[in-house]
Amino acid sequence: MIHLRRTSTIRIWHDCVALLASHCYKQVSPPLLLELAMNIPDDRFDAELDLKFVREVPLPPEAIWAAWTQPEHIVRWFTPAPWRTTECQIDLRPGGLFHTEMKGPQEGEQFSGVGCYLDIVPNRRLVWTNALLPGFRPNPSFADSSCGDFPFTAIIELEPISIDGSGSTRYTAIVKHRDAAGRDQHASMGFEEGWGKALEQLVELMRT
Amino acid sequence: MIHLRRTSTIRIWHDCVALLASHCYKQVSPPLLLELAMNIPDDRFDAELDLKFVREVPLPPEAIWAAWTQPEHIVRWFTPAPWRTTECQIDLRPGGLFHTEMKGPQEGEQFSGVGCYLDIVPNRRLVWTNALLPGFRPNPSFADSSCGDFPFTAIIELEPISIDGSGSTRYTAIVKHRDAAGRDQHASMGFEEGWGKALEQLVELMRT
Repeated sequence: MIHLRRTSTIRIWHDCVALLASHCYKQVSPPLLLELAMNIPDDRFDAELDLKFVREVPLPPEAIWAAWTQPEHIVRWFTPAPWRTTECQIDLRPGGLFHTEMKGPQEGEQFSGVGCYLDIVPNRRLVWTNALLPGFRPNPSFADSSCGDFPFTAIIELEPISIDGSGSTRYTAIVKHRDAAGRDQHASMGFEEGWGKALEQLVELMRT
Repeated sequence: MIHLRRTSTIRIWHDCVALLASHCYKQVSPPLLLELAMNIPDDRFDAELDLKFVREVPLPPEAIWAAWTQPEHIVRWFTPAPWRTTECQIDLRPGGLFHTEMKGPQEGEQFSGVGCYLDIVPNRRLVWTNALLPGFRPNPSFADSSCGDFPFTAIIELEPISIDGSGSTRYTAIVKHRDAAGRDQHASMGFEEGWGKALEQLVELMRT
């Protein structure tokens, strides 16, 4: 049995689409949006919108992968000291939860990170975003850009290399933002320094 | 060789995290966000936030999958008449582009749809979102909710069933929104009617 309702018009739908088309593209014009969409292949770095962090790390990809995907490791390296990661939940599948609770040295300083995994290639590539909640639901935190926070997608890539005969890794993190303002805000927060300090902590933890 | 910069403080980072924590959670409090994140498993339907469309369709899953994933089919059924889909590009992989251009019957009525595929299980499950652009970049269209548009994630599930001995499909579409306002706006645009009319067009196309 098929249940398809027949209707003579779908006028409301038409009106709404026309309304959205006229309103939203004042903000981001269709040519710009399409240019963004079609001219930036999957992982190409866009200097205006993205931040990139590259290091050669004296650990094999498997150790870095473990550090990124096991909560018991995350709580020991993820947040640059003196901040600490006090909780972590990981549901390592596309659409799964990546949750961290972070606390600062002062009373009341805390931050919740909630993200959604997007792409998982063990020991090679991990992608997650805070633009979606688990189950791929759009995150309501970014409905108002005046809140001060910004959505991003993080891509961690691990390439095995050999340094002095030992298994090492070229570690590349690309963080994609929705606009230059988000990129600039993230950069001025100390992206390079923060990711560097965290990676130092990761290396120290996983070498022992 | 390892390049990890040592720094005595990451004060800017701390200040910014504290700033974000204090500002953003006025809008969406951490408990609410975590509740959203942790209590709604992957595909559970949430009546306050989601819309659901279920039909039994007299086509095998393979035919419906083809209709959804091949541009030459999309342009013939995707947009309820008298609107038309005039262009379609599909890059069927997680992070790949789903682009449609739609035109209305009146001069100048047009709408660009740009989305990103998230999860692809051939003949069974297709997930994409307009909250991200291809390459998983957060979509800048939703930086200002006053634009009138809303982000959503669409999940199409195809379950093979037998009706009178012929291969048919239970067709379930769940559309997830970031908040009740988005859900309500989508519902009032004629979600049920629009998806119903489009599915009628799909069935008519793929049966011939």
